[in-house]
Amino acid sequence: MKIGIVGGTGYTGVELLRLLAGHPQAELRAITSRADAGMPVSQMFPSLRGYVDLAFTHPDQAGLDQCDVVFFATPNGIAMQQARALLEAGVRVIDLAADFRIKDIAVWEKWYGMSHACPDLVAEAVYGLPEVNRAQIRQARLVANPGCYPTAVQLGFIPLLEAGLIEDGSLIADAKSGVSGAGRKAEIHTLFAEAGDNFKAYGVAGHRHLPEIRQGLANVIGKPVGLTFVPHLTPMIRGIHATLYGRLKQDADLQALFEQRYANEAFVDVLPAGSLPETRSVRGSNLCRIAVHRPQGGDTVVVLSVIDNLVKGAAGQAVQNMNIMFGLPESTGLNVVPLLP
Amino acid sequence: MKIGIVGGTGYTGVELLRLLAGHPQAELRAITSRADAGMPVSQMFPSLRGYVDLAFTHPDQAGLDQCDVVFFATPNGIAMQQARALLEAGVRVIDLAADFRIKDIAVWEKWYGMSHACPDLVAEAVYGLPEVNRAQIRQARLVANPGCYPTAVQLGFIPLLEAGLIEDGSLIADAKSGVSGAGRKAEIHTLFAEAGDNFKAYGVAGHRHLPEIRQGLANVIGKPVGLTFVPHLTPMIRGIHATLYGRLKQDADLQALFEQRYANEAFVDVLPAGSLPETRSVRGSNLCRIAVHRPQGGDTVVVLSVIDNLVKGAAGQAVQNMNIMFGLPESTGLNVVPLLP
Amino acid sequence: MKIGIVGGTGYTGVELLRLLAGHPQAELRAITSRADAGMPVSQMFPSLRGYVDLAFTHPDQAGLDQCDVVFFATPNGIAMQQARALLEAGVRVIDLAADFRIKDIAVWEKWYGMSHACPDLVAEAVYGLPEVNRAQIRQARLVANPGCYPTAVQLGFIPLLEAGLIEDGSLIADAKSGVSGAGRKAEIHTLFAEAGDNFKAYGVAGHRHLPEIRQGLANVIGKPVGLTFVPHLTPMIRGIHATLYGRLKQDADLQALFEQRYANEAFVDVLPAGSLPETRSVRGSNLCRIAVHRPQGGDTVVVLSVIDNLVKGAAGQAVQNMNIMFGLPESTGLNVVPLLP
Amino acid sequence: MKIGIVGGTGYTGVELLRLLAGHPQAELRAITSRADAGMPVSQMFPSLRGYVDLAFTHPDQAGLDQCDVVFFATPNGIAMQQARALLEAGVRVIDLAADFRIKDIAVWEKWYGMSHACPDLVAEAVYGLPEVNRAQIRQARLVANPGCYPTAVQLGFIPLLEAGLIEDGSLIADAKSGVSGAGRKAEIHTLFAEAGDNFKAYGVAGHRHLPEIRQGLANVIGKPVGLTFVPHLTPMIRGIHATLYGRLKQDADLQALFEQRYANEAFVDVLPAGSLPETRSVRGSNLCRIAVHRPQGGDTVVVLSVIDNLVKGAAGQAVQNMNIMFGLPESTGLNVVPLLP
Repeated sequence: MKIGIVGGTGYTGVELLRLLAGHPQAELRAITSRADAGMPVSQMFPSLRGYVDLAFTHPDQAGLDQCDVVFFATPNGIAMQQARALLEAGVRVIDLAADFRIKDIAVWEKWYGMSHACPDLVAEAVYGLPEVNRAQIRQARLVANPGCYPTAVQLGFIPLLEAGLIEDGSLIADAKSGVSGAGRKAEIHTLFAEAGDNFKAYGVAGHRHLPEIRQGLANVIGKPVGLTFVPHLTPMIRGIHATLYGRLKQDADLQALFEQRYANEAFVDVLPAGSLPETRSVRGSNLCRIAVHRPQGGDTVVVLSVIDNLVKGAAGQAVQNMNIMFGLPESTGLNVVPLLP
Repeated sequence: MKIGIVGGTGYTGVELLRLLAGHPQAELRAITSRADAGMPVSQMFPSLRGYVDLAFTHPDQAGLDQCDVVFFATPNGIAMQQARALLEAGVRVIDLAADFRIKDIAVWEKWYGMSHACPDLVAEAVYGLPEVNRAQIRQARLVANPGCYPTAVQLGFIPLLEAGLIEDGSLIADAKSGVSGAGRKAEIHTLFAEAGDNFKAYGVAGHRHLPEIRQGLANVIGKPVGLTFVPHLTPMIRGIHATLYGRLKQDADLQALFEQRYANEAFVDVLPAGSLPETRSVRGSNLCRIAVHRPQGGDTVVVLSVIDNLVKGAAGQAVQNMNIMFGLPESTGLNVVPLLP
Repeated sequence: MKIGIVGGTGYTGVELLRLLAGHPQAELRAITSRADAGMPVSQMFPSLRGYVDLAFTHPDQAGLDQCDVVFFATPNGIAMQQARALLEAGVRVIDLAADFRIKDIAVWEKWYGMSHACPDLVAEAVYGLPEVNRAQIRQARLVANPGCYPTAVQLGFIPLLEAGLIEDGSLIADAKSGVSGAGRKAEIHTLFAEAGDNFKAYGVAGHRHLPEIRQGLANVIGKPVGLTFVPHLTPMIRGIHATLYGRLKQDADLQALFEQRYANEAFVDVLPAGSLPETRSVRGSNLCRIAVHRPQGGDTVVVLSVIDNLVKGAAGQAVQNMNIMFGLPESTGLNVVPLLP
Repeated sequence: MKIGIVGGTGYTGVELLRLLAGHPQAELRAITSRADAGMPVSQMFPSLRGYVDLAFTHPDQAGLDQCDVVFFATPNGIAMQQARALLEAGVRVIDLAADFRIKDIAVWEKWYGMSHACPDLVAEAVYGLPEVNRAQIRQARLVANPGCYPTAVQLGFIPLLEAGLIEDGSLIADAKSGVSGAGRKAEIHTLFAEAGDNFKAYGVAGHRHLPEIRQGLANVIGKPVGLTFVPHLTPMIRGIHATLYGRLKQDADLQALFEQRYANEAFVDVLPAGSLPETRSVRGSNLCRIAVHRPQGGDTVVVLSVIDNLVKGAAGQAVQNMNIMFGLPESTGLNVVPLLP
């Protein structure tokens, strides 16, 4: 499988490279960077020395239209400019940014602050959460890879909403992310001396992942949901921990519900009753580990859902989607054992 | 003021020493440790070299009954054994552990797993949250210094509950603590290599601070509250961030409500509307900084409350209580500017 | 290959499990723990859920003598008690502790504070630094896996000493280790709240790895070396960075020297001239990355050598030794791409 | 004392503000920022809310010439443009940047890459290391506040060099700094996700503090010194740990030497023999703590010197210099107890 990556200098880029370096069917053809064309990838990412021999290529010289699949690991607004030409050349496209995630163009334009370049492709794009949309992903030319928070939050709420067990108007998602979720960008608030030994909420008034989660959950139950979403910045590099609260409408065997919902999912691990998942238990891996609790037997259900934001929350899920799109075993190249400690 | 500290080898002990070293009225007479009697304090805590010249004393030789006030910075279950003798000698007592926090003895015994040695003193003890009980603290012989989570959570919920603005049966407190909250104890789960670069919930089934918070909030409204409390361990040293969720029963000017409630409080800082408090903004100080939000104008109110768990959550609040008990200006010795970065 | 691990509850144990889970020829038969017999491995190490299905076994019931090779991931002093019986049963043994590293029994007994149980096996044991002793390792029944600091320091000094380019009486090794190097033990000084946001030297008066490094370097040049070794504790989980100083006796092409020395080594990566290796560039991998500098063209050579202390400094090197002992390609199971960020 | 600060948006700026907020003689008149004029200081630095009520002022409107003293907490190259006018207005100046540190203009211009605007003021400026130049500082109009590494390194080497005990041609300074030393600048290599859980050397080929240290040490012995200086970036916020190596020329009581040299220094604390200073033992304070070792009784002396890079390495030393210049007790406003943990 000939693979191209557009925009490889961010964390989702290096993570794609790490995973594809261990993928037996993947042949990386090009990785582009306008600013760093010519620089060996291993100079920017010394971890890849000996594993990735390519240099960054200027996008115009990358021959992306000769690839079987192209990943966009770019800022928002790039993939929507370039996807059509690739699709018309028969290349399948997986966008790790947000360009094709939100079906309602007006909503997207409000949250992302730009006009959308290709609403028709948004309509065509498949939202790449395999645990929900596997069949459509298999047929897709264009996959919108989910955001990191939306992956952790949706996987935690879905069993409860599908079963109609919780009030859908007052969901609460209190989510905590490692700093790599902010990307590899020169900004003050994510400096070590700013984000270290510190904890804060952000985006309380509104975060771009809010409409994405709402859309995903609404699709599950066929009507809008009410959701309060509060993301927080945690002084760690990788990992998302979503603590989800819902009000139970009736009694149920929650543990069995979750186990059955994900019984056939390779990358969703429902932990034994009473478990407390740690972000490090999925560090570097494509797993989502989930535990469901009902504290003091009350009517509030608490779901704990952890992922590695750069893997199941980005590059790993993208590779999972690629595997599905090309008929490969879904775990190909994704059997990395989590790194602990 | 002659001061004794029982059990000075933990983090609340060293923090008491740091604050008292800068307190103009405090004369530290003795700091006890059964295990480390004879060791200079500055050998265990090199930060105090030049500020604290005492050595740890064996409890029997500390002359605590000659002090004006004795702080217990001990594990749970110690102060209740020793407080009576001190009180009878005319010494005032501030317990930083949990021995006198819970009025319902049966509840305390269930959560703390031991029989209580002196229920009558529990009845007498004043719960040392100055923003609620200042008048009683002024008269108290025996103060039960609040827990760290309970301080952050109660200060955040109190204005809303006092005003009757939120449903009191479905409160949610999603709280995150730095690792120093677990104390200076040789345990595996708080090792750097275990707690570093990792995030997890704990105590979901039940945490000892749950009944304490419930009692405090119930006192505010005169009836029981329903509360889901999920604490989390964050890879930082100091700080608690409580994210509190309540369902609004009616519209109100939440910002004004909070500002008025705490207008005369030296150590509660209500931030401007839209603010996102950071734990480091109170690092080393006795401040609680609070912001109140109503995301997307919905009926869920979100309160963000941060403290330094070792200061306003422990030693600083204890000194604040001491100042109140002895008629000193409440901020004496507590004007430490937070350390950022 | 049937494999047993004695003492699997520490960081070298979990790291062996992580690597062996991805090793195509490895069949893990037993992992022992006296204290935790019966507990599923994945309960202690949730990262291994889905990868390791064994429970810890009591040593007496582990059937270790049926294995092809047994790893000791135990505290010092255990392997020397048990190795003989296994060797006599035809099992090959790799000790990740220090029992067989020091040839001079008196020196060992002085630094490790116990009598040695089997000096004859020390004489037989091969010091498992493949870049020096590959031929002997191939024949060995018993391999003494090197310490973490000794691996990083020796690989950095060896080319210079072999070439006779530096004064051998005044070597300086200033080494920095992540906290996992102290093991998974309940101790105060490695708590997050103690070791976090802090840096200190330790063992300046004498560290157990000093005689090991001295022995290794002396073997290279056939006479004793003078070495000052100062280890430091760094607030990170994994990684060793050794900064090595030597006084040049003559001019030389240092870059070429290092490149030639390690040209055929799969796990020693000599970086381009001017490089500054980072510990994260080897995180989770068996690589040692090295750069050699001559600041301002003076007569002091500075070598920078980084490893992951738990991989090339422990479990990875042990698997590398196993591969050599059993005639497998040396990189089998060790092609893990480093995790960055 | 009327005080102005030019360039208050960096870490040395906020640290000056923290210390001056607790200084009984300091009256802060203005803090300038071209980019953020009008923004309340406490909005940028929430830790200062309640302690600093000023907003940033445009430099042209700050009335700096009405101050008694002005601190420059600016990037290199600013103070040299503005100092003359202030001095001529009778304002004393303390530059926390490097503009006046290096007496040899050619050396300065080579390392800092710009032409110097006022060589005559360099000649006049006093290098503000009180432990060496106290008398001159007392008389100075213009003080060049030392760099962070130079402070830690010089204080460690000075007693040995003054006593002529070590070879002065082969000094080695292996120094480790927290990330705040890189300043509050939007750069990729100091992001949390880059600098966290990572350790690396930098500036091995040449760091700007090298000529500053060389000059300071040469002044001590009256001739040039030979120095290899290797700085490292450590995943912590604050703190410098310098590990210094020298070759002894003769036997001596090193402990007594250090104790005597610094017997009258309020901010240099010579630890008892055998001590291992930790950076956190000086966190937030103006102390330098030092230990001297002679490992295994050999001829290599090892000095361990720790400071808080933002205090004794920057803002604290600047306040110390101000106190000296204005005849105040040297510790005024600097009695902050270090924050541990």
